Amino acid sequence: MSRKIIILTEGHTEPHAGKTAANVIRYRGHEVVALLDSTQKGKTSGELLGVGTTPIVGSLDDAPSANTLLLGIAPPGGKIPPPWRKVIVDAIARRKMDVVSGLHDFLCNDPEFSAAAKTAGVTLVDVRKNTEKNIARRQGLRRDCLRVHTVGHDCSIGKMVVSVEVTNGLKARGHKAKFIATGQTGIMIEGDGLPIDCIVADFVSGAAEKMILEHQRQHDILVVEGQGSLVHPSYSGVTLSLLHGCAPQALILCYEVGRDVVTGVESVKIPPLADIKKMFDLMANIHQRCEVVGIGINGRRLNAADAARERQRVKQEFGLPACDVLRDGPDELVEAVIAYKNKGGWESP
Amino acid sequence: MSRKIIILTEGHTEPHAGKTAANVIRYRGHEVVALLDSTQKGKTSGELLGVGTTPIVGSLDDAPSANTLLLGIAPPGGKIPPPWRKVIVDAIARRKMDVVSGLHDFLCNDPEFSAAAKTAGVTLVDVRKNTEKNIARRQGLRRDCLRVHTVGHDCSIGKMVVSVEVTNGLKARGHKAKFIATGQTGIMIEGDGLPIDCIVADFVSGAAEKMILEHQRQHDILVVEGQGSLVHPSYSGVTLSLLHGCAPQALILCYEVGRDVVTGVESVKIPPLADIKKMFDLMANIHQRCEVVGIGINGRRLNAADAARERQRVKQEFGLPACDVLRDGPDELVEAVIAYKNKGGWESP
Repeated sequence: MSRKIIILTEGHTEPHAGKTAANVIRYRGHEVVALLDSTQKGKTSGELLGVGTTPIVGSLDDAPSANTLLLGIAPPGGKIPPPWRKVIVDAIARRKMDVVSGLHDFLCNDPEFSAAAKTAGVTLVDVRKNTEKNIARRQGLRRDCLRVHTVGHDCSIGKMVVSVEVTNGLKARGHKAKFIATGQTGIMIEGDGLPIDCIVADFVSGAAEKMILEHQRQHDILVVEGQGSLVHPSYSGVTLSLLHGCAPQALILCYEVGRDVVTGVESVKIPPLADIKKMFDLMANIHQRCEVVGIGINGRRLNAADAARERQRVKQEFGLPACDVLRDGPDELVEAVIAYKNKGGWESP
Repeated sequence: MSRKIIILTEGHTEPHAGKTAANVIRYRGHEVVALLDSTQKGKTSGELLGVGTTPIVGSLDDAPSANTLLLGIAPPGGKIPPPWRKVIVDAIARRKMDVVSGLHDFLCNDPEFSAAAKTAGVTLVDVRKNTEKNIARRQGLRRDCLRVHTVGHDCSIGKMVVSVEVTNGLKARGHKAKFIATGQTGIMIEGDGLPIDCIVADFVSGAAEKMILEHQRQHDILVVEGQGSLVHPSYSGVTLSLLHGCAPQALILCYEVGRDVVTGVESVKIPPLADIKKMFDLMANIHQRCEVVGIGINGRRLNAADAARERQRVKQEFGLPACDVLRDGPDELVEAVIAYKNKGGWESP
């Protein structure tokens, strides 16, 4: 039976909190039948999240065909909003729906949810649940598989979207490319990957390395989704573990125009992008040669004219290809990756 | 009933693998009655680990007064060596001993150990077990509590020993100082702390911040034990999470003389100490002012003359106080911390 997903975003149907919902609609839209947010019913995903035409409904019963409830938010700390509990229990117990969650609070560890799921015979999928215990060893990395990694100046700025769009562009040009998902939404979209931020700290880089070792044989380019930022006081270590674990030879530096303070720690200013680039250049070149090959712009707050100006400005400042993959298409970044691959000289292990 | 510890180091009684054993003897020696290693029986801890005069025995029965078995190694990956299983079961079932472990493989998750412990009525202490789920928020840090953090060029180079010795030196000079333990051995020694490397990645910096918030009221100097290194491909993220979580205003840079390649990833060379210092300077100064105030030398492989020469050399190269706390005593580092505190100007939040 194919999945027919209703995405729960009750009270949180806006671009930042609802980024999981937005990206599942963007890349798995064919499986999504509705969004559930009683405070926004009658509107569409396009109006509130800027993507697709998924209808927003006020109750589970407004989506009778749905067989899967997907929790569509990614709040800091990853906790289930208390008002959602009765919707989740209703979906499990009455509608016999599977539930997919990317939150840190695992559904299967919740006595009420797990008892209800057992009775109803449905599956609770905790995308972040893992038992990873591999230490990164830096052994067996393929010299002729290019590892591209998206990094950025903050969390939630579109590194996953850039990764998916660049991967799709590489595939369209005939490359054996794969998107390596490292976050809950990426895993929901790609169908595989590891939830990097939810692995025990000592094993994060080992998990990244494991994904490289697993996919490098069948592919010539791997595009690894970045997480967080080296300047984010809460998540910088996740960022560095991933950077050193996937051992990229190429980086795409992503930023959102107008993002001035760190998400979740608003007392901390984000340093200028040139400083961020220096930090990534330094930390990415410790173990192998690695270059920033392009810049991913998230210009969602800009109008077309301002976005075009910002694109020119950043290209000039860094002397690098730059584009907003959703506004401009990913071609410039795709071509930059291919040019870097063809130029050679990056083939460190 | 007071603890009488027998430390299990079977087959691993040497300074690197046995660093947990060595440091428990160094700082909790009054509780230790013997080391258990049948391959080394008759020798002493001083001969093999360079610390104390603890006798090495060949079986549990050679230490009839022992009531606690402490697993005395810290291997990469933290797994229990298979030959140890029958010793552990014997200690639990026949001798009714509590067992203390700092390994990633938790005793309490092992069906055989936990069943035996239940029957025997003894306690299994997994020092690394935790349920930390706090996100670092950078709120409430006390301006007048100096946070000192030991960092280094590799793992297992003596950051914990420097932290304990400097803390003890500060206390001896009348400061309200506390050692903040972040690793399994530190926690065994101090009796509190959090096992940073065993926390889910997103919550590592939050755990470090939590310890600061908990102890800053009653102390004027906190000395936070560092972990790993920014250049260690397996653990760099743990290092950065801890650095950004404890938000130090002062660093003590530690290194072991003669350590050229990364422990556990021997294909990777350790960059020069000056490069390591630059990385820590850069990453530690993103959110608040932070200075390297001194250098901790681990000269265990040197004779006295070479150690004295190395100390002079490194003092000259960096223009900073430097000493081997075990050979020279910690005074120079203790005084450097006090001078930095008194000079002022570091009181960012």
